Amino acid sequence: MQIKATGISSKSSKGKILEVFFPIIDFDGNKTHIKELPNYETSKEIINISWGGEDLKKPISDVISAYLKLHLLSYKFVLPNSINLEGLFDSLPNVVWTNQGAISIDEIDEKLIESKLLNQDLNIRSIDKFPPLTDFIIPENVRIADASRVRLGAYLSPGTTIMHEGFVNFNAGTLGKAMIEGRISSGVVVGNNSDLGGGSSTMGTLSGGNNIKISVGENCLLGANSGLGIPLGNNCIVEAGLYLTAGTKIELFDVNGNSKGIFKGSELSDSHNLVFIRNSINGKVIAKTNKSKVELNSQLHTND
Amino acid sequence: MQIKATGISSKSSKGKILEVFFPIIDFDGNKTHIKELPNYETSKEIINISWGGEDLKKPISDVISAYLKLHLLSYKFVLPNSINLEGLFDSLPNVVWTNQGAISIDEIDEKLIESKLLNQDLNIRSIDKFPPLTDFIIPENVRIADASRVRLGAYLSPGTTIMHEGFVNFNAGTLGKAMIEGRISSGVVVGNNSDLGGGSSTMGTLSGGNNIKISVGENCLLGANSGLGIPLGNNCIVEAGLYLTAGTKIELFDVNGNSKGIFKGSELSDSHNLVFIRNSINGKVIAKTNKSKVELNSQLHTND
Amino acid sequence: MQIKATGISSKSSKGKILEVFFPIIDFDGNKTHIKELPNYETSKEIINISWGGEDLKKPISDVISAYLKLHLLSYKFVLPNSINLEGLFDSLPNVVWTNQGAISIDEIDEKLIESKLLNQDLNIRSIDKFPPLTDFIIPENVRIADASRVRLGAYLSPGTTIMHEGFVNFNAGTLGKAMIEGRISSGVVVGNNSDLGGGSSTMGTLSGGNNIKISVGENCLLGANSGLGIPLGNNCIVEAGLYLTAGTKIELFDVNGNSKGIFKGSELSDSHNLVFIRNSINGKVIAKTNKSKVELNSQLHTND
Repeated sequence: MQIKATGISSKSSKGKILEVFFPIIDFDGNKTHIKELPNYETSKEIINISWGGEDLKKPISDVISAYLKLHLLSYKFVLPNSINLEGLFDSLPNVVWTNQGAISIDEIDEKLIESKLLNQDLNIRSIDKFPPLTDFIIPENVRIADASRVRLGAYLSPGTTIMHEGFVNFNAGTLGKAMIEGRISSGVVVGNNSDLGGGSSTMGTLSGGNNIKISVGENCLLGANSGLGIPLGNNCIVEAGLYLTAGTKIELFDVNGNSKGIFKGSELSDSHNLVFIRNSINGKVIAKTNKSKVELNSQLHTND
Repeated sequence: MQIKATGISSKSSKGKILEVFFPIIDFDGNKTHIKELPNYETSKEIINISWGGEDLKKPISDVISAYLKLHLLSYKFVLPNSINLEGLFDSLPNVVWTNQGAISIDEIDEKLIESKLLNQDLNIRSIDKFPPLTDFIIPENVRIADASRVRLGAYLSPGTTIMHEGFVNFNAGTLGKAMIEGRISSGVVVGNNSDLGGGSSTMGTLSGGNNIKISVGENCLLGANSGLGIPLGNNCIVEAGLYLTAGTKIELFDVNGNSKGIFKGSELSDSHNLVFIRNSINGKVIAKTNKSKVELNSQLHTND
Repeated sequence: MQIKATGISSKSSKGKILEVFFPIIDFDGNKTHIKELPNYETSKEIINISWGGEDLKKPISDVISAYLKLHLLSYKFVLPNSINLEGLFDSLPNVVWTNQGAISIDEIDEKLIESKLLNQDLNIRSIDKFPPLTDFIIPENVRIADASRVRLGAYLSPGTTIMHEGFVNFNAGTLGKAMIEGRISSGVVVGNNSDLGGGSSTMGTLSGGNNIKISVGENCLLGANSGLGIPLGNNCIVEAGLYLTAGTKIELFDVNGNSKGIFKGSELSDSHNLVFIRNSINGKVIAKTNKSKVELNSQLHTND
């Protein structure tokens, strides 16, 4: 395997690399739209990288490699959870993302006071190790209603709509068309034709102490304000407002309505065709057979 | 009925209309603040439209009509759910909304690489069929803490405050003063003097399979992280964290505390003076008589 | 006590003060990084203020004092809830915050139409009495993934990470390192080493009728989509999806698993070492002894 990439880096006035944009990548024959740099005079440094496949399995130890791996995810050359991202946080500098480009934290105070005195508005959008995806890559056939809520490193498939309340972290995303009004945590992938309702939550592995990778199958619905702490199979629904964790005790009913006993959430991981609800008469969380079918509204996913 | 409108359109370099701003509308004698275009030389195309009342009942089949109807809603010439919006999604192009104006998706890759090489920061705020309301219209006596979360087509009445966590879709909004820290889905209207707590959800009809128009009456409170799947009457409270759907089974108590039996949420649609809570001893969802009164903090709604 | 401050004010074309930026403050000997104004020619008015300690106890009656008090909080010269903020809302004008600086509401319609005709994009980020914190102050060793969600007047300690779903109001914040993916309402403080999960809510006192100041102790976890309506002690966990209010009835269990009876949430205020969950078999909210330890991921808080 051969990976070739051309990048454009931004630096602080002291020469520290703040971010690297890779408009051109040849990933073992699969190529980005842009094939060569336009012929502008630029003060930016151009970086050329050549990697073998084994580089994807190595931990990250510098900012250039960190940015390249995030680009590989967002160009969809590699799937979430398929490459080594160890060392990512330590390699990425915390950067001030502004309407005047990336600025070093060490230089922001002076820039800010200058902008106020000279009436040159400096708008700080974010102070973070990760930039928004769309500062670098515009995925095809996708809508992102609030670009500040999708990080570089997100993997977004055609037909995906990220509404204002949606969020997608790096190393996470959608494998097909999807309506995302909830939060896709780092490491989480959502299957084709699934819908994450407004404010719905998927548990991540970066904070909160959870060690199991969460995922959402195909044709699933996480209801508004619901939450998910297990890998969910296909054709499943989590009722609006219900937070399902690995430890939730759930009474399981078969298709005829007969109880099969009580299971922990983790025991129902990757099970298909289930509707999870909290009985509003007695507070009991139950799972029953899903007889409906989640259908995405096609109007909302023709994103051209 | 006679509607006259003057618009300014933005086009892609290939001449495709990306968006139309209507600063001047005469809606059967009711007029926008701006009465005539200032006398600047402009490269933009000026559009003049004359509609009869029957045009409001027709489906939408072009981008100009789509933008005009969204403006009619946001100028509050027409109420949500009162005009025909069929064809809206198909008529609106997916546009890249940037600090350099609206850009065609077909042209964004080149613009992005150019901006990086030449250090002209291009900030992509959104990739969506709908622009933020405030790119076009500033409603009077309203606060909107994060402008990216209110779409053109929102109907916002004086005294409305949309906090950072608030959201208002097109064809939806507030009929009087209101505190909005939750999400107003498309088709949903909120009555005077009501409060949508932080992260509260109202079910929409665009996705999720719901067919009943949700609304919130006057003097209501949706608690933080609560949710609403029925039309709510006046003087009602949904407890923080409770998601009330059309299918929720609810034990109803009268003013003396006597049970009136168990009802589905949909059977309590538009009922007044109810407090919905989940009993924390036994998990049962109940509705009892509301004896308190929701009072908005007047300091928060004097938005001048 | 002696407070000296140098500010730069922005005014409307009619001379109304819209906002004041205080880059230089000497708070009884503690000083901001910036010690003197750079020597630029500026059209902005420079304001010099000298206060005694008693000024902190006075209500606010003008925009300059309002901005100075918000700066004192965000520079961490004073703690939340320690100075008199009465009169704040009445003193702050509602301002349009744009990529061209602060604009008066009275002048925005003309600016907007001009920008469209002349292709000078005017991006309205917010219409609010409060600007984003980072328009004025960049706290050290902090990440803020979406700058629009932290208001001036927020108090953020080193090691704090505010994720995209996090929010911090004025007169509120973190007393040590913290992961904030939930909402810190006005008046709320979060102790060292605590984690507010995605979409979690803390009840504020500005709206919603609550009169008790909410706080989160040290080493606490509010699970995703949970909520808090009582002051929480140290080493406590509120389970994902559970909204704990002052009125929630909670069965308390001791370390041996014996019931100690049923308490109202308010009776458990400031108690330590508790895990609050809703039993998923019977819907009962219970509190039991916390035997685990909340550990923040150190990678996420090395924000340099």
